[in-house]
Parts: sequence; C-alpha cells; structure tokens
Amino acid sequence: MEHSPSSGTITLEPIGIVRNDIAAPLLVADSDGLKVNDGPKAALKKFNQASDARSKIVIREELADLLDGIDDYSHIVVLYWGHGITDAARSLKRVHPVGRTDYPLKGIFSTCSPARPNPVLMTVVRLWGRDGTTLTVSGLDAIDQSPVLDIKPYVGESYPRDGVSVPEWMERIMGEFRAE
Amino acid sequence: MEHSPSSGTITLEPIGIVRNDIAAPLLVADSDGLKVNDGPKAALKKFNQASDARSKIVIREELADLLDGIDDYSHIVVLYWGHGITDAARSLKRVHPVGRTDYPLKGIFSTCSPARPNPVLMTVVRLWGRDGTTLTVSGLDAIDQSPVLDIKPYVGESYPRDGVSVPEWMERIMGEFRAE
Repeated sequence: MEHSPSSGTITLEPIGIVRNDIAAPLLVADSDGLKVNDGPKAALKKFNQASDARSKIVIREELADLLDGIDDYSHIVVLYWGHGITDAARSLKRVHPVGRTDYPLKGIFSTCSPARPNPVLMTVVRLWGRDGTTLTVSGLDAIDQSPVLDIKPYVGESYPRDGVSVPEWMERIMGEFRAE
Repeated sequence: MEHSPSSGTITLEPIGIVRNDIAAPLLVADSDGLKVNDGPKAALKKFNQASDARSKIVIREELADLLDGIDDYSHIVVLYWGHGITDAARSLKRVHPVGRTDYPLKGIFSTCSPARPNPVLMTVVRLWGRDGTTLTVSGLDAIDQSPVLDIKPYVGESYPRDGVSVPEWMERIMGEFRAE
C-alpha cells in the first residue's frame, strides 16, 4: 500500500456554525451538473451583494480561548462544510463552470464548484469584530447553518502574486465578476 | 438547536496522498504546545528548503476525470489532513507561535499552528505538471503520506491585498522568514 492513495476515513466535528440571511446557494448542483439560481445575471448581482453582506460565525463555547488574538487580524480564512451538497453532487466529474454552457466542461478540481468529493469550502473574509464566541464578517459565501470547520489567520504575503496564471475561461469569469 | 453551533460529525474520504522526502514536520505539537524540530533556526532554513522541494500528489485513479484542465493553472490550493497530529495536540487552546516563547501565547485560531481542532491544512503550491493522476508541485509543507482532501484552483485576485493587516507578532515572524 505504500505507493497507493490513503483510504482511511477522517472524521471532523464542526467548531461552529454560520448564521446569516442566505437561505439558498447561488450555485445548485445535482447529478446533471451545476445550475444557477435565478439565472446567471442574477447570480452575478447576488454574488456581489453577498460580498458586502454580514454573516455571524458562532463558535462553540468551549473553544472560546482558541479565538484569543483573532481580532488583531483584518481578514481571516474560513473553512466550512457544504452541508447542502448531495451525494450525487459529490460524485460529479466535470461541470460547466458557474453552470454556464458557454464555458467548457472542466474537471471538478479545476473549478471552484462547491460540489466536489469533499466539499470543504474556503473563503477569505473581512473580520469586523468579535463578541465572545461570535465573529462578525463580510464576504462569506456560505449559506445559513453551514458547519464551520476551521478559522485561520489570513496573511496576504503567503499567497503568491507573481508568475500566477489561470486558464483563459477563468480569466473571462473573473472579468465578468469585476464588470458587474 | 436553531441558534446553537452544529454538532453533527462529518466524514471525509481522502482523494489522494502526498509523496515526498519529508519524514517529519518542522513543528511538532503535544499537550504542552508546539516544539520546533532541531530548533527554530534550523526550522526556518528547512522551511525555505521545503518551498523549493518537489512533492508528488497521487490522486485516486477513479478521480482522474476531475483533474481535467488542472495543468492550465500555475498554482493550486491543496487541502490536506495533518495525520500526525495527536488528539492531545488537537485539544490545545493557546500556543507560542512557531514554538517560540519570545512570541506571545495566542489562541490556536489566531495562529498557523498545524495542531488545531480540525487539522485541515492548506497550502498554495506551484504546479509543475500532471502525469495521469500524479501532480508534481513545489512549496507543499505536508509530510510524506499526508492524506489529500481537496485540490482547488488558485485564482490570485480572489485573495485581498488592500486593507489587509496582521498582528505585530505575525509581522515579525514573516520578517524572519523573508530574512532567512
């Protein structure tokens, strides 16, 4: 087994939960692929509204001490679980990015699709404050009640800028987000 | 339960495994906190060597299609499991960052400590190539045999630059890494 991928199951307990007004995700996945709620144009607008909207992250009381010093950061990395992603969606192999057939079919690991084998989703968010075990953030694209798996500091210089390239279709998607 | 943090257990199957020459982590955690293998100076040097060293990421054969298009990215985000982290280390509340007592005790969520309640560790790595289900990368700080949980595209502009601030002690750590 030395050279073959590991097969042991890993178990996680959420460290907390997301509370916000986002009831449904922008992208919904089923066994056919990704679909955009209310159509792509509405989705782009909603996405940008979501960047400004505030969410609460409520951490388990017994983990309060682990937050010591967190409010000295302007931004944090939030890992959360895509709890609405079905088993069928976790089995997808290729999707049209952002659910749009004018983008080429690409393997799930090449896309930001929330439907993936292990839907551990990640967002860098602005941290506005801490009140006990509750953090107030903006820019979190998680829906209400999403289980939170980890909070990490966001240290900008750990993320490369130079020599970074992405495929042409991803450039186009980012361009559309900027234009909206 | 509507307003209380979720308590359901989440299970993950690794999508693959890390193969490299790194047998032991730089930072070792036990119930007393973090310790640096071979002392802090050696650790800084090793850390920088690790940035250049190549690792293989071997993905499970049945997930090959999910990699379609990945080699059009210069960099990818790797989520992996800190499989060497003991239960005692996962219960730590505060640590001296990088195991150094000249840095203040901080809550785990404020630090990059690999010892955390859910050791889902994340690194942005340079992708050098794909051969079937094997990716060759550099900059991965995972030890050999680490289970890989997810591969995501690295899209630089999703990571904020402006208005980002970190605590003074984290600035000092980053300065030491740059100077080494």
